[in-house]
Parts: sequence; structure tokens; C-alpha cells
Amino acid sequence: MTNEHLSNSTIFPLGKKVESNFIGDAYLEMIFTDETPLNTSIGNVTFAPGARNNWHSHAVGQVLLVTGGEGWFQEEGKPAQLLKTGDVVNIPPNVKHWHGATVDSWFVHLAMTPGQTKWLEPVNDEWYNAL
Amino acid sequence: MTNEHLSNSTIFPLGKKVESNFIGDAYLEMIFTDETPLNTSIGNVTFAPGARNNWHSHAVGQVLLVTGGEGWFQEEGKPAQLLKTGDVVNIPPNVKHWHGATVDSWFVHLAMTPGQTKWLEPVNDEWYNAL
Repeated sequence: MTNEHLSNSTIFPLGKKVESNFIGDAYLEMIFTDETPLNTSIGNVTFAPGARNNWHSHAVGQVLLVTGGEGWFQEEGKPAQLLKTGDVVNIPPNVKHWHGATVDSWFVHLAMTPGQTKWLEPVNDEWYNAL
Repeated sequence: MTNEHLSNSTIFPLGKKVESNFIGDAYLEMIFTDETPLNTSIGNVTFAPGARNNWHSHAVGQVLLVTGGEGWFQEEGKPAQLLKTGDVVNIPPNVKHWHGATVDSWFVHLAMTPGQTKWLEPVNDEWYNAL
């Protein structure tokens, strides 16, 4: 879509461009990093159209809250799921997956990640463009 | 403001009207209740203009993420703070406080509450109207 679309979907700060483990333009702002009372930090992740993170897994899992736009979530061996504003995803521990924008929409989600993340290979253009 | 304002600020479902411990029209939808991987559930709370919850405290604390509109947060003995879209509040354990909409704006926040809540007396009109 357009930057207007992004503007409409931006609630929390855009933050800084992510420099590794992503393809395309993606941005991260950590909006909660206190040690208490949650067992997790909270990051606001914004993907430009076509941007996506590499395949990865989380040692403890991750919860995504979609706050704007449309994107993809895919676990290895399963079809990609289209995510829209208001969707909530509970990603199990140690499941290889990726998430990112659709080819023509910005995509914004909050990410709550209680444990460590293991980064793997990129979601290459051949894979992504076949969605 | 108007219902248009509410529409613009609604990302997660409105849910059902809250029947106790609030003054005015407020709505709650629990958007995350799984036992893992977070130590908290997540509720989407929507306050009509003028609505607010009673004074209360949380045994473990609470984190608020403001996703729409404008509202008040006040700890006992301190001035009320005006909250706007994008604000994040970390409420300490066992601190008596309340939150709610301003008199002329809808107010929407996510609430993450790892422990129990102790409900106290209402924020009466005399107090609220003096803000």
C-alpha cells in the first residue's frame, strides 16, 4: 500500500532500521524493557511491503499482536497464514518460522519474546514470491 | 470525541461491557489467555468518554499500552497523568491507582496483569470532574 497506510497503522514509535536477520526494510522500537512485572520485553516491529525476517525459532516461544497492515506468518512445513490487524499469534517454543509483510502492504506487530531467539537462513525471494 | 474517534482507535475487539468496578461505559476483551509463554494475560480495555475504573491495586503490578484516544492515570497522592496513544505505563505492585478516559475522548489500552487485582472505592464525580 502506501505510506498513508503506514501512518494509519503506527501507534508506537517506528524505531530504528533493523540491520541483520531481515530482508527488506524493517524497523524496531523496544517499547517495554523493564525487568518487572512481565517475563518479557515488548518490541514494536514494522515491516515495509515485501520485508520479512529470516527463518528463526524462540527458546521459550513468542506472542505477536498485529496492530497494523497485513503480513505472513509461516511455521516450517505448514502453509503461510495471512495476518491482519487485531490478530494474535502464540508461537510455540523451538518451532522454526518466519513473519513479515505481504508484498503490497506494510505490517506492524508487537512482539513479546520471553527467551532467546535462534536466527537461521533467509526467506529467499523464490520462497517468498511463491506465496 | 465521537464514535469515529473510537473506530479509528479500535485495533482489537471491543468485547463486552464491564459490569462492575467501573463508572460509565467500559468494555473488555481478553485477547490473550494462554498459560504460556507469558506470565500474564492481555486484555483490551475501551473506555467511553468519562468512563473510569474504581481505585484499585495489583499484587504484582500491571503494564498498560495505550492504543487509542486519551485518558488519565493517577496514583494515590500524585497528580493525574494524561495518557495518549503510544504511551506505556508500568504500574508498581500494591500502589492504589485508577485509569480511565478523559471527559471528552474515548480511551483504549491493552492491560497486562500478571497477578491479582484488589478493587477499592469508585473515583467519584467530584474527584473526576476536578481533574
